Amino acid sequence: MTETSQRPAVSDLSEGELLARIFPLLGPATGTVVGPGDDAAVLADHGGPVVVSVDTLVEDHDFRLVRVNGFRTSGYDVGWKSAAQNLSDINAMGGTATALVVSLTLPPQTPVDWVEDCARGLTAAIRGLGATGCSVVGGDLGGGGQLVITAAVTGTLDGRAPVLRSGARAGHTVAVAGTLGRAAAGLAILEDGRPVEDFGSPGEELVAAQLRPYPPLAAGPAAAAAGASAMLDISDGLVRDAGRIATASGVRLDLDPSLLRRYADPLLPAAHLLGVDPMVWVLGGGEDHGLLATFPQDALLPPGFTAVGSVVPGTPQVTLASQATALGGWDHFAD
Amino acid sequence: MTETSQRPAVSDLSEGELLARIFPLLGPATGTVVGPGDDAAVLADHGGPVVVSVDTLVEDHDFRLVRVNGFRTSGYDVGWKSAAQNLSDINAMGGTATALVVSLTLPPQTPVDWVEDCARGLTAAIRGLGATGCSVVGGDLGGGGQLVITAAVTGTLDGRAPVLRSGARAGHTVAVAGTLGRAAAGLAILEDGRPVEDFGSPGEELVAAQLRPYPPLAAGPAAAAAGASAMLDISDGLVRDAGRIATASGVRLDLDPSLLRRYADPLLPAAHLLGVDPMVWVLGGGEDHGLLATFPQDALLPPGFTAVGSVVPGTPQVTLASQATALGGWDHFAD
Repeated sequence: MTETSQRPAVSDLSEGELLARIFPLLGPATGTVVGPGDDAAVLADHGGPVVVSVDTLVEDHDFRLVRVNGFRTSGYDVGWKSAAQNLSDINAMGGTATALVVSLTLPPQTPVDWVEDCARGLTAAIRGLGATGCSVVGGDLGGGGQLVITAAVTGTLDGRAPVLRSGARAGHTVAVAGTLGRAAAGLAILEDGRPVEDFGSPGEELVAAQLRPYPPLAAGPAAAAAGASAMLDISDGLVRDAGRIATASGVRLDLDPSLLRRYADPLLPAAHLLGVDPMVWVLGGGEDHGLLATFPQDALLPPGFTAVGSVVPGTPQVTLASQATALGGWDHFAD
Repeated sequence: MTETSQRPAVSDLSEGELLARIFPLLGPATGTVVGPGDDAAVLADHGGPVVVSVDTLVEDHDFRLVRVNGFRTSGYDVGWKSAAQNLSDINAMGGTATALVVSLTLPPQTPVDWVEDCARGLTAAIRGLGATGCSVVGGDLGGGGQLVITAAVTGTLDGRAPVLRSGARAGHTVAVAGTLGRAAAGLAILEDGRPVEDFGSPGEELVAAQLRPYPPLAAGPAAAAAGASAMLDISDGLVRDAGRIATASGVRLDLDPSLLRRYADPLLPAAHLLGVDPMVWVLGGGEDHGLLATFPQDALLPPGFTAVGSVVPGTPQVTLASQATALGGWDHFAD
């Protein structure tokens, strides 16, 4: 936080005053019996099982307020990303989100307008991504040494069975919904010393993909309805996340590089400026929060999904055109 | 964190290795269709509305790993408290908890055994407080500059209406379940320079009340069943929290000091050693996570509740024997 001397900070307000600024920015608490302001929120009865997940973003670990090139991450960006990654977890089970609760840990010098922007970003993501029926229904505010935002999300399956990671079988099609490599390309631009403007408007769009990811929320329930046998959201990179399906299902996932070119080719200009192979972003980059799913041979791929490979028998691993890939070794978390 | 050189730190393990240490300490994921390990957990269908809340504990703000007197807060304590304060929020609505999701932000030097202890504390609180049917069903692990633990909790109302803060009416009885002032007394002992042992075993029990609060989880649903008109959990102090019911309900809550002596008297030895009036702890101390509720005149107080005052007409405020109290001014958050 710099250049904050002219802006009111959260330490200038009481908790109640800060909440009074935030609540109007969250919009109405749709689908609730009791919204924000009591000990807990009460959601309208959706019937059926409840899907629940939690995700955290930490300053200087998951985002940087100011980059080496002077680029500033706004509260809006952080709010958007927090909502998006949580909504994506419900999407990856084949569900639809019903509510978010959000905890903000704020250093005392945090500008009030940064927090207001964060609330706007949460709301904008919920609406912009099409999570109708979902809203921020409660939260927690507190002090800390660095900015931390944790959101927990609930969802419903609308009568469908959840799509797990363990149902991929030999012969099934491997498919992707959403984008691949764009968020990683945006991160590479942000971590480069040059101003973002040097990468032109395509570069700015890649930075936007990193800051405000666009998980395809219609695709998760559509995949579940189409009979997807396994699914997860690609948050840590295609190869690594494909490895998780391979491990959970006891199969090999073979990706077809020729089918992945369509994701790499649009990244060529930025990749050229940065001197990298864009396939590294497509195969190893996370945070796009697209979906990776497998479908039985006879299933029609639902709208938004593109085939990128197939499930084959064998030791659980991920291969590229049947070849072990060095990028497989990039999966350094042994899960 | 000090004296960690001989203990493995989280930076020595992969995320998967750390999760493999934690999962067995969480016990079975009761009441779930899908437990930890997928994109989200799926809870068994409880029917009816879902209650949801979130609470965060931050190192050096909500807890201190090492006190001036050398006292160390364990991972077990922090895990217990995180679970307890979340379970208490569901209790305060008259509900019963069904699941916790927990996000841990860990500095790289955090000892692995501290994290394992935290998982044990979460599980111990759920079981020790009697939250049968609840378990930790998922979570998130990440790095950060200071320890932060955020838990979100879901619950069910078992067919009852939620008990809000807004239903208190003139003539209703004001009652408390659980303890008052003990956590604040424990905090005062921890913040004193002397070793905890100087306060004897009663002092150690007060410190335990601060570190591992004991919200009365049977009392919330019992209050709802008995027709409680308003309820919240006392997390910020009796007067301040009573003020919230007064404001939400548009009434005055008059507390009877003679009925509060039973909470203050056991604190006299510690108060004497620290040179304070124990009523300050009873009226202003939070973190016991007892319940404050109001009941219609004709309602029988359910087991565990003790009358401490009455609801009277008038400007929303809290009085002590009909007198405005200086402690009311301690309610510095203007909500």
